[in-house]
Amino acid sequence: MRALRLQDWRSTPELIEVPDPTPGPGQVVVRIGGAGACHSDLHLMEEFEPGTMPWNPPFTLGHENAGWVHALGDGVTGLSVGQPVAVFGAWGCGTCARCRVGVDTYCENPSGAPVPSGGGGLGLDGGMAEFELVPDSRHVVPLPEGLDPADAAPLTDAGLTPYHAIRRSWPKLPPGSTAVVIGVGGLGHVGVQILKATTAARVLAVDNRPEALRLAEECGADRTVNSGPSAAEEIRQATGGRGADVVLDFVGTDATLALGVATARTVGDLTIVGLGGGTLAVSFFSVPYEVSIATTYWGSRPELVEVLDLGARGLIRPTTTHFALEDALDAYRQMRDGTLEGRAVIVP
Amino acid sequence: MRALRLQDWRSTPELIEVPDPTPGPGQVVVRIGGAGACHSDLHLMEEFEPGTMPWNPPFTLGHENAGWVHALGDGVTGLSVGQPVAVFGAWGCGTCARCRVGVDTYCENPSGAPVPSGGGGLGLDGGMAEFELVPDSRHVVPLPEGLDPADAAPLTDAGLTPYHAIRRSWPKLPPGSTAVVIGVGGLGHVGVQILKATTAARVLAVDNRPEALRLAEECGADRTVNSGPSAAEEIRQATGGRGADVVLDFVGTDATLALGVATARTVGDLTIVGLGGGTLAVSFFSVPYEVSIATTYWGSRPELVEVLDLGARGLIRPTTTHFALEDALDAYRQMRDGTLEGRAVIVP
Amino acid sequence: MRALRLQDWRSTPELIEVPDPTPGPGQVVVRIGGAGACHSDLHLMEEFEPGTMPWNPPFTLGHENAGWVHALGDGVTGLSVGQPVAVFGAWGCGTCARCRVGVDTYCENPSGAPVPSGGGGLGLDGGMAEFELVPDSRHVVPLPEGLDPADAAPLTDAGLTPYHAIRRSWPKLPPGSTAVVIGVGGLGHVGVQILKATTAARVLAVDNRPEALRLAEECGADRTVNSGPSAAEEIRQATGGRGADVVLDFVGTDATLALGVATARTVGDLTIVGLGGGTLAVSFFSVPYEVSIATTYWGSRPELVEVLDLGARGLIRPTTTHFALEDALDAYRQMRDGTLEGRAVIVP
Amino acid sequence: MRALRLQDWRSTPELIEVPDPTPGPGQVVVRIGGAGACHSDLHLMEEFEPGTMPWNPPFTLGHENAGWVHALGDGVTGLSVGQPVAVFGAWGCGTCARCRVGVDTYCENPSGAPVPSGGGGLGLDGGMAEFELVPDSRHVVPLPEGLDPADAAPLTDAGLTPYHAIRRSWPKLPPGSTAVVIGVGGLGHVGVQILKATTAARVLAVDNRPEALRLAEECGADRTVNSGPSAAEEIRQATGGRGADVVLDFVGTDATLALGVATARTVGDLTIVGLGGGTLAVSFFSVPYEVSIATTYWGSRPELVEVLDLGARGLIRPTTTHFALEDALDAYRQMRDGTLEGRAVIVP
Repeated sequence: MRALRLQDWRSTPELIEVPDPTPGPGQVVVRIGGAGACHSDLHLMEEFEPGTMPWNPPFTLGHENAGWVHALGDGVTGLSVGQPVAVFGAWGCGTCARCRVGVDTYCENPSGAPVPSGGGGLGLDGGMAEFELVPDSRHVVPLPEGLDPADAAPLTDAGLTPYHAIRRSWPKLPPGSTAVVIGVGGLGHVGVQILKATTAARVLAVDNRPEALRLAEECGADRTVNSGPSAAEEIRQATGGRGADVVLDFVGTDATLALGVATARTVGDLTIVGLGGGTLAVSFFSVPYEVSIATTYWGSRPELVEVLDLGARGLIRPTTTHFALEDALDAYRQMRDGTLEGRAVIVP
Repeated sequence: MRALRLQDWRSTPELIEVPDPTPGPGQVVVRIGGAGACHSDLHLMEEFEPGTMPWNPPFTLGHENAGWVHALGDGVTGLSVGQPVAVFGAWGCGTCARCRVGVDTYCENPSGAPVPSGGGGLGLDGGMAEFELVPDSRHVVPLPEGLDPADAAPLTDAGLTPYHAIRRSWPKLPPGSTAVVIGVGGLGHVGVQILKATTAARVLAVDNRPEALRLAEECGADRTVNSGPSAAEEIRQATGGRGADVVLDFVGTDATLALGVATARTVGDLTIVGLGGGTLAVSFFSVPYEVSIATTYWGSRPELVEVLDLGARGLIRPTTTHFALEDALDAYRQMRDGTLEGRAVIVP
Repeated sequence: MRALRLQDWRSTPELIEVPDPTPGPGQVVVRIGGAGACHSDLHLMEEFEPGTMPWNPPFTLGHENAGWVHALGDGVTGLSVGQPVAVFGAWGCGTCARCRVGVDTYCENPSGAPVPSGGGGLGLDGGMAEFELVPDSRHVVPLPEGLDPADAAPLTDAGLTPYHAIRRSWPKLPPGSTAVVIGVGGLGHVGVQILKATTAARVLAVDNRPEALRLAEECGADRTVNSGPSAAEEIRQATGGRGADVVLDFVGTDATLALGVATARTVGDLTIVGLGGGTLAVSFFSVPYEVSIATTYWGSRPELVEVLDLGARGLIRPTTTHFALEDALDAYRQMRDGTLEGRAVIVP
Repeated sequence: MRALRLQDWRSTPELIEVPDPTPGPGQVVVRIGGAGACHSDLHLMEEFEPGTMPWNPPFTLGHENAGWVHALGDGVTGLSVGQPVAVFGAWGCGTCARCRVGVDTYCENPSGAPVPSGGGGLGLDGGMAEFELVPDSRHVVPLPEGLDPADAAPLTDAGLTPYHAIRRSWPKLPPGSTAVVIGVGGLGHVGVQILKATTAARVLAVDNRPEALRLAEECGADRTVNSGPSAAEEIRQATGGRGADVVLDFVGTDATLALGVATARTVGDLTIVGLGGGTLAVSFFSVPYEVSIATTYWGSRPELVEVLDLGARGLIRPTTTHFALEDALDAYRQMRDGTLEGRAVIVP
């Protein structure tokens, strides 16, 4: 089959012919119906070097995958050939307390995983190919009716990541509360949709790009805020002076983190999702009392099931553009140039 | 001022002249902008007798009230004359652990309350008059912008009661879950709206009246079910055989409770809100494992604040018909005859 | 090897020679270090008949098992031969939402399980033998340091069952709260220990046997109550009239369920663990407002890990008596006669 | 009456004669049975200056108070003269959402409070006198049986502050979890007691003073760790490499915050209670995934009720030394010199 492979660090991926995978005991081969292209792939191709991650090329790219069950290894139950499925992308050891409940993202025994802290498209062969080998059937999640694999693929990351970040904050988002979404990009715009679908909180969306603020409005934001110098004051006023119960920072720079602290309500949440490289200096008096500051990384398998339900019912709809496998490099080029409309999905 | 008073058990209320109330220390007089008429008022007029409740007539009817602050007693802070407000209707002792956090409904020291287990319109003078005396300023809740007292009034009961019942079940209503609403009447149709506004659960509405099922659809129900003999089977199938994560019974007869048990998922909730007089025989094998069966009664003051926010933002909208104070008896007549459209609100 | 097998319904188990088990892919053979004898085994031998359960004899008895890993099937990771382990006893389909997080007890796809609603010693071969075949390595739980298999075995049921029942109620058991344990037998006495170890609630223990009340005191109960006609009144008074925040009924007869309702506080929990066959008539006014009534069945795999930690640290210590495999029938005889001291553990 | 008053910033408090207070409507005068002396009082006397706080001297010191009801203002219910009580010390506006449920510590309308962000002994007259005027009866908490006011006084702060910090983390402290207490001083040693009383977590206590580690052991710590350079490694090893589920930093310096981050488990809590003036640089990769970092300040009124229950039952016992009112300055001197044994309680 053909596969888009990263052959070395700091190199351009190549579309080459590789053998079709066959499943061992407990494994599954998925015929790919959609593989999302993610910004983090650009980091893989352009910035990482030996030692950055605990794994190395070569491997096939693509960590947001969905398709149809193609072949089942010995002992796999609960799945049938031809069934549409999504692939849960974080592959942990499978036996630690975290993996036992589907939280492979925070696996506590990474040396017991197929590769440490990785998955398909992240150190192991991913979904930018005709088939993907999934090393344990527990990572294969049946699609609910009405959800096409090409639409499901981006939900496994661009949907799951904001969903996980928001879900931890549900208890702080009753009616009358306010959620602030900083950064209305690939994850942020889905975050706005998730907040509207799962809570009655008012949603304020912050960005410095007019088209991003328009997208936020289309996604249901109750109000948009330009991230200029008066943003914090505007948000304070919009919340009656109390501040936002939950701030989700999908950017993660010094400036957005500072905005988060300036707008959070006491006992609120400030969640750092974006990899903008910023730092926040936390001391007893620099942050409103009892604001919970935490990063979140991707999401869990049970949460993916919930995200797929939202997708199948049309409650979240990432904007996507489809590319053929041979055009995948073009997708990354548009992503790099900022001309890409929504999420790129490679459809082999 | 004029007031609609219940002068004795098993009697028709009378619209008579009474002195205007004046507030003592810590008290508030509210000029009424709306007083909801509730089915339970019919029970008060027609069925109760001495000893049914720990209090007796005469008193002014009306326990769903909103209006404007008219006069403040000594020592009241945080309110100003003319301000639009709702009245939280359950008036407890104010000092037990429950009242301290606004859960007067479950006051544990009823002998310390103005009347035991009562409130305005329930043993004490209520809101079917030009003014209502509220015996403690903590029961007075400022209205959010955009909410008229006449619209706020029914929210204090017909909104608050289903809200409280649903709120306890939020943790069981993530995406992919199902909530069943049995009985799409005065409370049930608001319940459907609350479920849709605050969760992403699928909502199935059950009733035996076609117009109730139409109302459920208008309120956003994902599916309606006729409460015939195949209702349980239909719900099981609609949930992939698993059953409903949450069943809210706004009727409360033997038949609806049995339907609740027949359709609840293991570890789900079956909440009994309706006063239909039914009984459910619970034993180890008669109910799916770990279904939590509980009644709920009205709601708490902090919850009322949240309900008013939903109302002000248009996320819940009880259907109402307005009546002048002199037509209040007509409202009860229509209620008794079943010809009333939505909730009756008396607007003095 | 030798195994104590139930050959038919309503028959006396027989100790006979059977082939040693060998593990298939993903399976584990455990050398038994302890197999608890449970009251429910008496029901299996004496009362059940074809059709009572969705499975039938013959099978080896014993559903509370611990020992050492003896042999690993292909593809099993995270375990090593000789390692001391407990066996999680409820074996579900492994792929439904419940099984995915270790809640096999409430498996929603029982037809996909090795036997429906069963496990080792319950339709499949259990631990009253030299070896037990565990059909999926996820049911094998490593023992923490300091816990002997013979001590761990009864924790997998007599520890796990009350633990699960109590854990759901933790949020209602802060300091100042009261938990009532009805029935201080094999599960109840461990329940008292678990409550004392994991909460600061006051624990009232109810029984009609003086030796049971003595055992409750040894386990740390703050007060014991004789289950006579004044029990409800005594408990109400001991809680300042409020009632108990949590009632755990380890008996489950009409009388104990009625006592539970009579002593529960509004918004409390009444949890039915015991299989006493009783029924509770629940209606809007028969139970204090918002008391959550629910049955619970056994516990989950993650909870078993927690129970084993409590056992290893000496925070729970079921009273046990050891028997050789050839004396197992004698253990059941003593259990039937009521002369058994604590839990019987068969040590091959 | 005599009162120990701070007459000016940066001055030594003076014991002078002042008029006895009399209660206005809704107010209570408490005859003091004990007033705790707190380290923060030293800051008040020695370091603060005009503008540091939104209030100024003169006022009577003492913000940890208990005693007996001496006089009740008009309209106060639920209390009786002579009744032993504790004083909840944070006095907010009483009408914001936070104050309505007893969380005056995070009052969102400080300009509506008696003084902004203060209380008795903090801008208003406190308890180092024969009587204290409490401006709202809701701050007066009846003592449970068996708790003397002199013992209750320090619980209102030195008990309540660690209790609040720990209570937010209960869901992360099941059996098998680990809590790390950094700093076994006036709050920390009570923190160890609270953890042991309310959870089954293993408790590791960190300090650099041998006598503090001995105190931690007496309070029930499972293990003590010297806060040297190998502390982080020792804690990692003691938790099987996973890290601590909850870290409570009662010191709050750069070094202790760094130790907290180095020892926290993914998805754990790092709670900053101590006012050591340290700063923690938080970025996406500097802290384990999803560790919730938050400060906490004092506690709520409902929590104080729970703390008093723990105290009355002997489950927490702050070490105290009693001083007469005329020896209060001596207590502060010993505190400053580090020769004070436990908490100083002024007993008028």
